[in-house]
Amino acid sequence: MAIQVSVCGPRDCSPDDESNAREVGRLLAGRGAVVICGGYSGVMAAVAAGARTAGGTVVGILSRADREQANPDLSIVIPTGVGEARNNIIVNSGDAVIIVGGSWGTLSELALAKRRGNVPVVQLGGWRLLDHDGRPVPGLRYVSSPREALAATGLW
Amino acid sequence: MAIQVSVCGPRDCSPDDESNAREVGRLLAGRGAVVICGGYSGVMAAVAAGARTAGGTVVGILSRADREQANPDLSIVIPTGVGEARNNIIVNSGDAVIIVGGSWGTLSELALAKRRGNVPVVQLGGWRLLDHDGRPVPGLRYVSSPREALAATGLW
Amino acid sequence: MAIQVSVCGPRDCSPDDESNAREVGRLLAGRGAVVICGGYSGVMAAVAAGARTAGGTVVGILSRADREQANPDLSIVIPTGVGEARNNIIVNSGDAVIIVGGSWGTLSELALAKRRGNVPVVQLGGWRLLDHDGRPVPGLRYVSSPREALAATGLW
Amino acid sequence: MAIQVSVCGPRDCSPDDESNAREVGRLLAGRGAVVICGGYSGVMAAVAAGARTAGGTVVGILSRADREQANPDLSIVIPTGVGEARNNIIVNSGDAVIIVGGSWGTLSELALAKRRGNVPVVQLGGWRLLDHDGRPVPGLRYVSSPREALAATGLW
Repeated sequence: MAIQVSVCGPRDCSPDDESNAREVGRLLAGRGAVVICGGYSGVMAAVAAGARTAGGTVVGILSRADREQANPDLSIVIPTGVGEARNNIIVNSGDAVIIVGGSWGTLSELALAKRRGNVPVVQLGGWRLLDHDGRPVPGLRYVSSPREALAATGLW
Repeated sequence: MAIQVSVCGPRDCSPDDESNAREVGRLLAGRGAVVICGGYSGVMAAVAAGARTAGGTVVGILSRADREQANPDLSIVIPTGVGEARNNIIVNSGDAVIIVGGSWGTLSELALAKRRGNVPVVQLGGWRLLDHDGRPVPGLRYVSSPREALAATGLW
Repeated sequence: MAIQVSVCGPRDCSPDDESNAREVGRLLAGRGAVVICGGYSGVMAAVAAGARTAGGTVVGILSRADREQANPDLSIVIPTGVGEARNNIIVNSGDAVIIVGGSWGTLSELALAKRRGNVPVVQLGGWRLLDHDGRPVPGLRYVSSPREALAATGLW
Repeated sequence: MAIQVSVCGPRDCSPDDESNAREVGRLLAGRGAVVICGGYSGVMAAVAAGARTAGGTVVGILSRADREQANPDLSIVIPTGVGEARNNIIVNSGDAVIIVGGSWGTLSELALAKRRGNVPVVQLGGWRLLDHDGRPVPGLRYVSSPREALAATGLW
């Protein structure tokens, strides 16, 4: 079975996030990894497009029960119909989780991935977390390039 | 994107169900369809094994949040962690749904597939449904062989 | 903690189903049971109305993530946002499950309740199930009145 | 229908979080609000206990499909069986969401509540969020006492 990597990020993303996501997708496909994503626009579309240009397999785990608004670069479509609860499914499906950019939905995926506890979670761009005393919450790996993101997963 | 066909059936299945499921998997893979299944034993394992022997792609939509007890013939594993609610996801993911054999879990998948309303649902073996007046509930297609099951989906 | 009884049935129900559901709700409230239902129209609205007229508590487990289309007789509203997967939650929440009438969605609840295995499931009206050899599938209790439905749960 | 307020927080919480949660529960019950919580230990148990001492109604939305490990102060138990996806259901069920303390699971609830977009989200203790440039992520209301938490919901 191929390695599966979940890539999460906002629909409304910055140009930097988009280009990072595309490159993450391209690199993952180059390593033979299956990309798991949310299947819609923004970071989700960019990582899918990147992976497909490199001949990769992309699974879109949709919130809707049908295929409306799914991006065109998905190899396999899973229209869960469970709404935002699909975020749990995305993060459970990865041997690693790469977060590109920040939004509330993306933060929920970051948090759920860390809640899983036994999976590498890598953040490229996006938000920072401080604990009650203003110190960084431990356990996150911040990276600054797609290449570093793959390396930080520890999968290769 | 490839055609996706969901195949549902019990963990504890009869030898006939198992051999039917294996053949359904083999035939679907031969047509280039992606097989969606529940990813565990019984009918789920048989359809996966059949598809893999024919070089097909099999997606296992697991009830658990991890990969424990998943069968070894899955190409892609989706550990949903949503328990039996994963049945909805399985039936939402198919361009057609083929039911092999009968159990309460399988009946829930049949019912949810019919509830979707716009997808062919084909039954190979398994239970019969009568309405309050003892007449067959309309809308189901009963078939008696794997080959008929594929034909009855209307996809080819 | 009060006894909780889940009552399931179609949105588009017959006048008989509606009057049965209303009486089931009234009787359950009279016994001090909390009624769990799907929170929309048809059987769901009737059982809620019946329970409220008798001063009972009704929990509506909605498929939507908001309160749109919820019936006005709910005491507590749970807008799950998980779509039809909310059927699992309804049947998991009852110390017994009473099915009033038949539809595909209702059948999925009946099947999921039986799948749970350790909960009384009572059917008032609705569909019949036959196994592959034409014999009734065992494990269902068919009753013909609301009063019998409560008795058949074995809770009182 | 009564106002419903969701209260979220970690199983492993600090003594301050526990005493805050208990007082939040007591105050909410005093206002006639139904408390929605996760139904297990830590902050969930404390808010339930506080509400029950004041005669309030507490709904526990459990991750498990059964009642194991549920705390004893729940009035109504919803064993969803959908695992961590129950976090979505908790935050969808509140007219406001009060976060007490910090953990990854709690952060996912905070993020999902903000993702909803149209509900007041109040944080009492717990983690801080900074955007990519080190500025506080807008849209959160930090308070320092249970009384302020209720006021900050804007519901009364």
